[in-house]
Amino acid sequence: MTVSSLSSPAVPAELLALANRLADTSGAVIRQYFRTPVAVDDKSDASPVTIADRGAEEAIRAVLAEVVPDHGIIGEEFGRANEGAELVWVLDPIDGTKAFISGKPSFGTLVALLKDGRPWLGVIDQPITGERWIGAAGHGTTLAGKALRTRPCADLAQATLYATAPEMFKGDDWTAFQRLYQSVKLPRYGSDCYAYGLLALGFVDLVCEADLKVYDWAAVVPVIEQAGGIVTDWQGRPLTPDSDGRVLAAGDARLHAAALERLAG
Amino acid sequence: MTVSSLSSPAVPAELLALANRLADTSGAVIRQYFRTPVAVDDKSDASPVTIADRGAEEAIRAVLAEVVPDHGIIGEEFGRANEGAELVWVLDPIDGTKAFISGKPSFGTLVALLKDGRPWLGVIDQPITGERWIGAAGHGTTLAGKALRTRPCADLAQATLYATAPEMFKGDDWTAFQRLYQSVKLPRYGSDCYAYGLLALGFVDLVCEADLKVYDWAAVVPVIEQAGGIVTDWQGRPLTPDSDGRVLAAGDARLHAAALERLAG
Repeated sequence: MTVSSLSSPAVPAELLALANRLADTSGAVIRQYFRTPVAVDDKSDASPVTIADRGAEEAIRAVLAEVVPDHGIIGEEFGRANEGAELVWVLDPIDGTKAFISGKPSFGTLVALLKDGRPWLGVIDQPITGERWIGAAGHGTTLAGKALRTRPCADLAQATLYATAPEMFKGDDWTAFQRLYQSVKLPRYGSDCYAYGLLALGFVDLVCEADLKVYDWAAVVPVIEQAGGIVTDWQGRPLTPDSDGRVLAAGDARLHAAALERLAG
Repeated sequence: MTVSSLSSPAVPAELLALANRLADTSGAVIRQYFRTPVAVDDKSDASPVTIADRGAEEAIRAVLAEVVPDHGIIGEEFGRANEGAELVWVLDPIDGTKAFISGKPSFGTLVALLKDGRPWLGVIDQPITGERWIGAAGHGTTLAGKALRTRPCADLAQATLYATAPEMFKGDDWTAFQRLYQSVKLPRYGSDCYAYGLLALGFVDLVCEADLKVYDWAAVVPVIEQAGGIVTDWQGRPLTPDSDGRVLAAGDARLHAAALERLAG
């Protein structure tokens, strides 16, 4: 199974409009809570979750139940429903909850639509700055209506690399990631999903992460691919719901190949 | 010499207005270049600098030369002038040039006014999101006109800690910083001066950094102190132009004391 959005038919306009409505809905909830003293629960994996995460996902799911009750859903906070459907929405209401609870607008709402298990459409929405990246088969990737292209960069020694935090890399992953980190010109932590948006925009060359779930990367794939970039696991394989959570995104296929090699040792 | 802005006379309104004008001036230059393909020069310390850094500082210095030609200036890009004056402006046009060239709006323009060598007024301006923190003796700290207070947090195990990047900590500093990093609930890299704004806002508890120059921290001191927080070096001493570049900011004096102890070993 390949997950490329490039060989897929164009996403119909009504599904693009629905994706925008979902992001609007989520943003309206999140803006109510941003920089207010929300209670923070720690999930079983010690990751924080707030009423904003839960409220935003509930609001999105309510729209889906009303408009497309036959579609499937995979959501970070409220689990799976009808996930065998041809069309499945994958939701992370707040990717970057740690940034959100710090008052830092680098978090985002991730909305993806899978068609037959492949990412077909992806939205990275930053509801505070008002930035919304949309990548969809047949439509390219846009930010505020402007078509985006990744930038050429073939050489690790000239590359800018982003990752969310050192904690995501355990054991051998840390060793591999450090090899890559030491090889680039400008390595930087701390941007959550926003970093993928910057890559699509042509201002970051690589994003390398681990420990990601399907709702962390599904929206990212069309945003990057439709802007001319490439996203795979650390072996260069397409991401699938069974992937191991390691993700390597690059704006330039030559750089992607060089980074895979560096990760391998 | 103490550098607290708390025991100083109130900053006159015309100097506050001038500080705002300087940030307006700088922001207008920076916005022209944000997310455009600017050339990046590497300074002798390998830190990047762009036409935006230089243009913004030139624009600020032109206003100072016109309005207050007798005041001193310490600027990151164009050096020192009349620095023995009673009133000295300290300028970092783009703190976080690496974020700026990545298209990430966590950088900021830092403008400080020293009176007799002590930080008297500080501005942290984010010209893309339009956020401007202003802390000034006698005026408190505000963001968009709203008075800010840091939040209480006495316990390292409950604290959120920010720092710009691992690279700023060398040798023993890295060991000390790691002790602190491992002690807190939520450690995070990657926010440049924006992290100090989040601390003043009451959403971050600690910022611990090293290798800072006077133009990196002078504006931060009034912003934090006037919001109820504390900023010192890693020995708990007030920051002075002769400080060693290690900075510890906390929203709660009890947490500051605990963090100093953890840094000490």
